[in-house]
Amino acid sequence: MQKLRIGIVGYGNVGRGAEKVVLAMPDMELCGVFTRRAPESISLLDSSVPVYSISQAENLKGKIDVMLLCGGSATDLAEQGPYFASMFNIVCSYDTHAKIPEYLEAVNAAATGNTAVISAGWDPGLFSMVRLMSEAILPDGLSYTFWGKGVSQGHSDAIRRIEGVKNAVQYTIPIGKAVNAVRSGHRPAFEARDKHLRECFVVAHKGADKSAIEHSIKSMPNYFADYDTTVNFIDEDELMANHTAMPHGGAVLHSGRTGENEHILEFSLKLDSNPEFTASVLAACARACYRFYLEGIYGAKTVFDIPFAYLSPKSRETLIKELL
Amino acid sequence: MQKLRIGIVGYGNVGRGAEKVVLAMPDMELCGVFTRRAPESISLLDSSVPVYSISQAENLKGKIDVMLLCGGSATDLAEQGPYFASMFNIVCSYDTHAKIPEYLEAVNAAATGNTAVISAGWDPGLFSMVRLMSEAILPDGLSYTFWGKGVSQGHSDAIRRIEGVKNAVQYTIPIGKAVNAVRSGHRPAFEARDKHLRECFVVAHKGADKSAIEHSIKSMPNYFADYDTTVNFIDEDELMANHTAMPHGGAVLHSGRTGENEHILEFSLKLDSNPEFTASVLAACARACYRFYLEGIYGAKTVFDIPFAYLSPKSRETLIKELL
Repeated sequence: MQKLRIGIVGYGNVGRGAEKVVLAMPDMELCGVFTRRAPESISLLDSSVPVYSISQAENLKGKIDVMLLCGGSATDLAEQGPYFASMFNIVCSYDTHAKIPEYLEAVNAAATGNTAVISAGWDPGLFSMVRLMSEAILPDGLSYTFWGKGVSQGHSDAIRRIEGVKNAVQYTIPIGKAVNAVRSGHRPAFEARDKHLRECFVVAHKGADKSAIEHSIKSMPNYFADYDTTVNFIDEDELMANHTAMPHGGAVLHSGRTGENEHILEFSLKLDSNPEFTASVLAACARACYRFYLEGIYGAKTVFDIPFAYLSPKSRETLIKELL
Repeated sequence: MQKLRIGIVGYGNVGRGAEKVVLAMPDMELCGVFTRRAPESISLLDSSVPVYSISQAENLKGKIDVMLLCGGSATDLAEQGPYFASMFNIVCSYDTHAKIPEYLEAVNAAATGNTAVISAGWDPGLFSMVRLMSEAILPDGLSYTFWGKGVSQGHSDAIRRIEGVKNAVQYTIPIGKAVNAVRSGHRPAFEARDKHLRECFVVAHKGADKSAIEHSIKSMPNYFADYDTTVNFIDEDELMANHTAMPHGGAVLHSGRTGENEHILEFSLKLDSNPEFTASVLAACARACYRFYLEGIYGAKTVFDIPFAYLSPKSRETLIKELL
């Protein structure tokens, strides 16, 4: 079988995860990493894989089957998604929930002869599929999504923008009591603070007013004001030693009913490395993306459009025999 | 929107579950129940729904969009699947794992101008999808399936065939220690007896040799010999009072790796009523079945062929906005 020729755009956390994941997939070949930095400044796990400047990508048209876009949603993807979709099949994990329809529209317009699978991580992505499936099966029900324990990049960034803050890491932590209340079938109604705690580890600049920083964090609207938030001041060494790993996880629970009978569906993830797992989902979706492309199904797709068989390199017959 | 016109074939546990579920689905209309029994002997939840003899089904061609086949795999479906697929779109939960390829072949050959979704319950069905997805995302990993606590009809039947047994119910019970061993990321290797216990409640005929019955159960190959099995003799009243509910459930766990990082995916079900939940899955798959049919995609399909959006009555735009 011909291997799927993969390119990676962006060499941050997810990009490095994608490199590791694609090199390990037996049905994939890593054909290049594309970066905005100076290519010679980057050394890959496999030194035989070329590093290109993003501007060189157009020269690789037809030589890469699927590009995994590994940039951030806030800054990179809004621009890179449509740009790369005009030249290549792409998969990305665009995760700014509120702007997905707009992003999908833009990518779809660009992907006239290519296929794009967008928002394909674990949330949006796998969790979205579980929410859809649960609601379709048990419409008399409620879905609950919990995130963590894990680092929220957005919340960490928000703290870093406060005056006097040198560095910060914020953990989102699901509240066990809330998870158990859903499991019990009671369909509780929650406020934001009932579901998640926010725990912050902050390195302050020398001489900064720590109580002012703590107040700024705890009163920050949208990010922290609606949650029970704890703030711990630590030094940079401790932050680097104990808070640079990237575990994450979470759960979708659906509590539904058929008449008087209660049913609970629960899907949970416990991830040692959020970026490597996200990259693994992107890689599986690259198979589906290319299958669509070969069938002439172009434009922007989401995980809701993908038949599960398309995620696997195995034949339909093998899947039915081994996994059904 | 035109409602999906549903028929139900077979009025056992799953058939009654399907009746309840379909009557509650806002996008569906129950158009008839088909039985091998005398139609007048059956009274439905909604007396305005007609009950037909199975032999009358051919007169309803074109008046029912999807038939939910609710008979048992062992006896009914092998025959009813191809028969009904030649006249209607069908959905069934055929669950004799080893014979699925053969059954699929037979249904596919019959469904020349119709669409059939087979093996669409929770295992095979939802659990199969989680196994496929997990393996596609984390191929360096192992999936583990646990069933229960719940009644196994096949094992209960096997006990009932033993001489001296009047009635019996068998519970399959997952062993918590095994589930936790998988959650810990150690990828343990299990024998059958490490994963599940078998607990039997048996009503013996008057004067029957209970120790002979117990020995017959515990030494029965395939069914019990490879498990730690407990046998409790009770009277018929206690069996009827305490062991006729049909809760079930189970979990699929996948323990996978990206290099040195461990990831655990877990999907679990806790069901008050196994037949009503199975019927709910059949109903959701009926939407997909009819979508395929409208697109001219005929023949036998499985859950691996279904894009998730097809399970829902909502538009793609709404799904993306609300659930992605």
